[in-house]
Amino acid sequence: MSEAKFEELRTRLAEVNDLGRTMALLAWDQQVMMPRGAAASRAEMMATVGRIAHVKFTDPAVGRLLDELTEWAGRHDYDSFEASLVRVATTDWRKASRVPADLRAEMARSAALANPVWVEARRTNDFASFLPVLTKNLDLRKRYIDCFDVDDEPYDIVLDDYERGLRTKEVRRIFDYLKTYQAPIVREVVALAEEAPPAHEFDIAKQKVFELEVVREFGFDESSWRLDPTVHPFASGTAIEDIRITTRYFPDRLEGFFGTMHEFGHGLYERQVDPALARSPLARGVSLGMHESQSRMWENLVGRSRPFWRRYFPRLQELHPTLAGYDAERWYREVNRVKPSLIRVEADESTYNLHIILRFELEQAMLAGEFPLEQLPEEWNRRIWDYLGIEVPSDTEGVLQDVHWSGGSIGYFPTYALGNLISAQLWEKITADLPGLEEGFEHGEYAPLRDWLREHLHAEGRKFTPGETLERAIGTSQIDPEPYVRYLREKLADIYGISANVES
Amino acid sequence: MSEAKFEELRTRLAEVNDLGRTMALLAWDQQVMMPRGAAASRAEMMATVGRIAHVKFTDPAVGRLLDELTEWAGRHDYDSFEASLVRVATTDWRKASRVPADLRAEMARSAALANPVWVEARRTNDFASFLPVLTKNLDLRKRYIDCFDVDDEPYDIVLDDYERGLRTKEVRRIFDYLKTYQAPIVREVVALAEEAPPAHEFDIAKQKVFELEVVREFGFDESSWRLDPTVHPFASGTAIEDIRITTRYFPDRLEGFFGTMHEFGHGLYERQVDPALARSPLARGVSLGMHESQSRMWENLVGRSRPFWRRYFPRLQELHPTLAGYDAERWYREVNRVKPSLIRVEADESTYNLHIILRFELEQAMLAGEFPLEQLPEEWNRRIWDYLGIEVPSDTEGVLQDVHWSGGSIGYFPTYALGNLISAQLWEKITADLPGLEEGFEHGEYAPLRDWLREHLHAEGRKFTPGETLERAIGTSQIDPEPYVRYLREKLADIYGISANVES
Repeated sequence: MSEAKFEELRTRLAEVNDLGRTMALLAWDQQVMMPRGAAASRAEMMATVGRIAHVKFTDPAVGRLLDELTEWAGRHDYDSFEASLVRVATTDWRKASRVPADLRAEMARSAALANPVWVEARRTNDFASFLPVLTKNLDLRKRYIDCFDVDDEPYDIVLDDYERGLRTKEVRRIFDYLKTYQAPIVREVVALAEEAPPAHEFDIAKQKVFELEVVREFGFDESSWRLDPTVHPFASGTAIEDIRITTRYFPDRLEGFFGTMHEFGHGLYERQVDPALARSPLARGVSLGMHESQSRMWENLVGRSRPFWRRYFPRLQELHPTLAGYDAERWYREVNRVKPSLIRVEADESTYNLHIILRFELEQAMLAGEFPLEQLPEEWNRRIWDYLGIEVPSDTEGVLQDVHWSGGSIGYFPTYALGNLISAQLWEKITADLPGLEEGFEHGEYAPLRDWLREHLHAEGRKFTPGETLERAIGTSQIDPEPYVRYLREKLADIYGISANVES
Repeated sequence: MSEAKFEELRTRLAEVNDLGRTMALLAWDQQVMMPRGAAASRAEMMATVGRIAHVKFTDPAVGRLLDELTEWAGRHDYDSFEASLVRVATTDWRKASRVPADLRAEMARSAALANPVWVEARRTNDFASFLPVLTKNLDLRKRYIDCFDVDDEPYDIVLDDYERGLRTKEVRRIFDYLKTYQAPIVREVVALAEEAPPAHEFDIAKQKVFELEVVREFGFDESSWRLDPTVHPFASGTAIEDIRITTRYFPDRLEGFFGTMHEFGHGLYERQVDPALARSPLARGVSLGMHESQSRMWENLVGRSRPFWRRYFPRLQELHPTLAGYDAERWYREVNRVKPSLIRVEADESTYNLHIILRFELEQAMLAGEFPLEQLPEEWNRRIWDYLGIEVPSDTEGVLQDVHWSGGSIGYFPTYALGNLISAQLWEKITADLPGLEEGFEHGEYAPLRDWLREHLHAEGRKFTPGETLERAIGTSQIDPEPYVRYLREKLADIYGISANVES
């Protein structure tokens, strides 16, 4: 009886999952393949498929099945497929069912309308023209929060959308630590900064050859992966066996290559989910923070490491005559150069988190109405000066730089910084479990890292909460900023000769 | 009141249309982009989206709206959007609602299971291993036919799926004419056939350059079109502004280039549908036969014409040294060479229809159980001898060559030949309306042809029946084989010196 009900639940959720995967394809295609003339038609297709998926998931019949199965699922092991599916789907269902379809539709419409306004405002450095749509988005996000019971802080509700169960006060504690211990490192290093590197030339066809050679050694293969160029890179896919990463190319720098490694990290997480979870809501990464820990790990902990460049620098140099005067060590220092800059997506490892902290603070202030939105640029610019010591010359390079607020995404930014922190926590555990791991990179040995990640993190997908998932991987459910700051200080001590001691 | 009901109908049909377009994307991606590891997952996604589209369309509420709107729609002009939508959707709904969901699902499943069996049977020349799945598919198709009232012949039901309103006896009359008047041309010409052309070498990168130069002059542009390589070429798309054609390349012949022009013809039909019909069931080509008339027109009537090659041959020769000894005239004769061959998709203009006729006859015989299915290869081989005068050395090159029967498609083949015939009927009207049209090809002038097609055929999409659509374009609703046979005989008279007189 309960088995039959569980089968019905599983079938319904599989259908919803198929629609979600279809949405992912519609979005990937839109950004990578679609002729631009089809933009309006694609928006309609996505609205239709998204609406059907939402209606099918929030169907009261699904809620009833979940209620009826709670006790039965509780008799299964906590980590069984049955118990996990009922537990996770119940939480998802309750959250999704709280939001009226009208409000959801209005949020989607408002975001769609705001996007071109933001594009134009950024292009013309005109914050005033963005203000009305930002106000509207923020207003809708407040109405969204009002759909839920706020225990502690309103920001908890939106944060929970991206990092389930995490509280704002916890993030604040973590970020305060970073303000105390990471910001000073930047100030120390900037004083010692090496001069700007010479302008380079990187032939784009050869960038493509090089990145494929590298990610193939990482674990990319054509039977389950794609790599395509796009304007704003991302990772996506339609199945555990269909992982699609995207990248971009610049003729004067290798930013695109680091982006490719970053997206590979996201892709590998999805690729290594247990195939037994396929077509269920458990078959993906557990949270944005955990996802970002994977992308930052491959981009930075692997891709900006000395052993990595010992392996690949000769090949890079062979492909690009611009690097004639370099050796692996000089190149390693260059890709780890610290320089505070205005743009988040171009920020280096040392300054990135500081960009996030100011956004986190501003988002809470905006939700709380702490200042009129007209003042947002000033508030932005003041914090950039406080945290990074630089002046913001224009809103285009300041408050208008990110797409997120135009899409109504509030609560998303912190996950980027949390990902950095989690990557370092995982790294301490992984390198303790696998002595010689980093030396192996010099010989192209990535299987031990991939296998550790699959076994301790990727395979279980979304069966547990982010905290439980972290605990199963490293023994604690707490996001801890210390390992990241330690990692950063030790790396920069080696390069710049600052003190390796974490206490500032 | 009726207006509100019409809006509800339109909204429901728009949703179904969005899902149909989404299916098209899932299928295009599957064949062109998807990593092969995702095959099973993609089949599930397509089953889900297809099922939802079918359920939403055959919803009894749609049937009620159509009933309630019939009288109201009848008060509008016959060619108005309102009258056409209600009329066409009513016919579609009645046909779709007749078939139980179970049978539809079983047909889809059986086709999916039969495909790999057919692939393997063709590879190993083993008809016996294909026989059970063919038997099953045929049996299901008979059950499908049983869902409908047969007025005249059972084959009418399946033919109507692809060419609405056309009767089997009409096709038989047309094909009998071809057997009498087209088959003798082939026999005449083969006796005079020029010797086989030398082996060529066509660099594939340069084939791509050339085909893009040509289709851009035809009207292909990147803001609304894509062209990608695939194994089995086809035309698809997700919107009037998103047309996707596919092709393939051979290193020793330009078959792919003619295929690209063929798919361009299909694509242009969809591209030139009136945008006011978007998101409705009227926003596509009216039938497979009419569609094929467009693809064959661009492939053959344009792409195998003398003025066309006067324009492009110098460029083709410049790109491919293999053509050093040629001039435009010799090349024109080569691309119009007649030679009976075993494989339909490689058949020339003169023999193609004969391949279709034998399939049409065999399909009817199979449905009627005129011989045990074990005898199908013999029946096939005997007809190939009768119509084309060649021996079939293996079932791989005979009865196993086409994918259609493995997918359960019966009634589809005739539309290929009908398309050839319609293309010649249209051509007689177009060239009468537009004197100098063909001479214009020599100067890259295709706008007059495109515009004629849009105005007289493409724009109205699926508002009328195929017969009505043909009548609006050329003044008769009847498919007439005479213009095609006349065209063929005149062309071959010019090349081979046979009599231009159509009476054999």
